[in-house]
Amino acid sequence: MMDSNKDENHIDEQKAQRHKARQQKVKQGVDAKIAAAQEEKGILLVLTGNGKGKSTSGFGSVARAVGHGQKAAVVQFIKGTWACGERNLLEGAGVEFHVMGTGFTWETQDKEKDTKAAMEAWEHAEKLLQDESVNLLLLDELTYMVSYHYIELERVLTALKNRPAMQHVIITGRACHREIIELADTVSEVQPIKHAFNAGIKAQLGFDY
Amino acid sequence: MMDSNKDENHIDEQKAQRHKARQQKVKQGVDAKIAAAQEEKGILLVLTGNGKGKSTSGFGSVARAVGHGQKAAVVQFIKGTWACGERNLLEGAGVEFHVMGTGFTWETQDKEKDTKAAMEAWEHAEKLLQDESVNLLLLDELTYMVSYHYIELERVLTALKNRPAMQHVIITGRACHREIIELADTVSEVQPIKHAFNAGIKAQLGFDY
Repeated sequence: MMDSNKDENHIDEQKAQRHKARQQKVKQGVDAKIAAAQEEKGILLVLTGNGKGKSTSGFGSVARAVGHGQKAAVVQFIKGTWACGERNLLEGAGVEFHVMGTGFTWETQDKEKDTKAAMEAWEHAEKLLQDESVNLLLLDELTYMVSYHYIELERVLTALKNRPAMQHVIITGRACHREIIELADTVSEVQPIKHAFNAGIKAQLGFDY
Repeated sequence: MMDSNKDENHIDEQKAQRHKARQQKVKQGVDAKIAAAQEEKGILLVLTGNGKGKSTSGFGSVARAVGHGQKAAVVQFIKGTWACGERNLLEGAGVEFHVMGTGFTWETQDKEKDTKAAMEAWEHAEKLLQDESVNLLLLDELTYMVSYHYIELERVLTALKNRPAMQHVIITGRACHREIIELADTVSEVQPIKHAFNAGIKAQLGFDY
């Protein structure tokens, strides 16, 4: 009995040591990467893919920047007449919002009108992309405007390349154009594994919008 | 000259009509899905995968809920001593934060201490998972606590299943356990396409943390 207790204690100690060694290795890896990463610059982050959470992540970044006292602005390229909880909170915290004039593009079904609305929103975005006082700019659902040829790709690339060196930009939306992805510093693809909506669950105020 | 102009106008009109027909079809599909989705319930959303944007998306959801005047709470299972911009903003807006006692688990390298800290945070989470007044609960980076066996999977599943029917819960972190994914209503996997950090760019205040 004594012996088996002793054995167990010995095994537990070995396990604890192995755990410690493993964690030390992880920490060394993380530390080395942090030491190597010394450049500071404005990041272009693209959140694309068909899964839920892209825009929400963009708004979370805006909340973070504002929480640090930085200046953030949002241009929303697709938003219907749905209420927007993020906007209530973030506008109250001093974030400038610009929302494209029409609703969902698949509701208006008028290419000329949509193109005009997209261009107006984009021209506003271009001004913000020249404004050094803006630390973070969220271009929410911009990708669709490029896919639908409402806004020229070249014009988007030029404005992004010429923005202030320290300005962070986040672009969200499905099927981001390859050339924007190439220009980006960080790209995450949000993939849907499953979605409540497809199981017959309604979009709910405060959670989905 | 007249004729070719006429032809061009005719082609443009055909294009506009095709565009309209295409958009109408998209709208019909969306409308049909909205009509079919009528159930209202608390959603369990899992944001997993190795890409950037999971926690940020969780915090964006919290901002949205608070913007609609709902009650939200956050339990953070891994956070070091880094400043937290989201917390500044969201605590100011009335969000309850509970942050696990130790820093990154790969910094403490002490399994017993980490397990204790994880259990304390989890017990707090369990209370929130029984509180009907909480509309949205973010369990940030919970997945690691399960992977490291700091918190029992069964205990997590039980608390999630028995929570108030209308309570939304968001779980973030890499490598979410299969059984939590099975229980979830919506699961997004955030995959890294590229990351600025690996190109030698430093994590920056207001953007990365």
